[in-house]
Amino acid sequence: MDFLPESVAQLINELAKLPGIGAKSAQRLGFHLLKNPDLRNQILGEAVLNVKKGVVTCSSCCTLASQDPCPLCEDPARDQRLMCVVESTMDLIALEKTREYKGLYHVLQGKISPLDGIGPDDLTVQSLLRRLKEGIFEEVILATNPDLEGETTALYLQKQLLHYPGLKVTRIARGLPSGGHLEYTDDATLIRALQGRQSLV
Amino acid sequence: MDFLPESVAQLINELAKLPGIGAKSAQRLGFHLLKNPDLRNQILGEAVLNVKKGVVTCSSCCTLASQDPCPLCEDPARDQRLMCVVESTMDLIALEKTREYKGLYHVLQGKISPLDGIGPDDLTVQSLLRRLKEGIFEEVILATNPDLEGETTALYLQKQLLHYPGLKVTRIARGLPSGGHLEYTDDATLIRALQGRQSLV
Repeated sequence: MDFLPESVAQLINELAKLPGIGAKSAQRLGFHLLKNPDLRNQILGEAVLNVKKGVVTCSSCCTLASQDPCPLCEDPARDQRLMCVVESTMDLIALEKTREYKGLYHVLQGKISPLDGIGPDDLTVQSLLRRLKEGIFEEVILATNPDLEGETTALYLQKQLLHYPGLKVTRIARGLPSGGHLEYTDDATLIRALQGRQSLV
Repeated sequence: MDFLPESVAQLINELAKLPGIGAKSAQRLGFHLLKNPDLRNQILGEAVLNVKKGVVTCSSCCTLASQDPCPLCEDPARDQRLMCVVESTMDLIALEKTREYKGLYHVLQGKISPLDGIGPDDLTVQSLLRRLKEGIFEEVILATNPDLEGETTALYLQKQLLHYPGLKVTRIARGLPSGGHLEYTDDATLIRALQGRQSLV
């Protein structure tokens, strides 16, 4: 691609390093930015440069926030007896958007993944256990993702929490997603859907 | 999402304005950049800010390049009798990658699209017609995309080129893509594949 202007080639090269952006998408984005108004590019470029500015980790729930403690931990209206453990701030946001959950959170900042060399000590597990000891929690919802690493992490936490008498430990439900079809659903999900069936009468 | 740090929210907001990047992808990219090494973010951010630097439009073929005339127009080895008309520099690159075409190009910098208010005068048609008059071209290949606007543009150019006696005007072939299946191919493509059938013996 040596007939591409150097500045465009460099941008495309950098864009292609982002997750989920392949060579073709990077090229399309690069040419889009080339035609974009200068002001828009300036805002985007500076947003990339400044993304880490003012971002802190909440010393309580370990989420990424603009203040410490984060607004969720500081909110007295949240149910202090309920804790939901998630892998990342993105997962926290996904749950918050539902407006269904009113308890507190704990963000692990990752998941146990031996292949990537990530063990429990690389996560915020110690801080989670400390909070459970010091707080008035009655239930911990393990809301790690239902994939291999997420299940491993949930299993690990479940074992750690055996030593907390009276603490209820739950796992988010697995089954068919809303709008799903049995016909197109994988076996593992169908098995879980059967195992987790709910009594109606 | 007011529990998102301001800098991250702003970046996600900007990313979501890019083509092909929805709210979810923007969020994923935003958090990726938040965890990215500072150096990588700096290179990407500056690449966005500098993308237009040193980019010029070739005064001959109207492609975007780092010099004027562009390396393709300046290359004496290219066949000066053959011109391939494309919509964009990206299309030019796609054709160049095949290493099959050895003629010159003309980049329209768009396509006729009445719905978007883009007519022939918004494209580099006048410069194309001038080049055809002044050059020694024997054939013009219309290589606009085979969608509604691309076909409209090709048809318009075809009519304009009626006034150039002796100039051969061709259109890139339409038919089944390599590796395609008749079973899964849309009717319009199948009809074109039949109409454009080639004699084998």
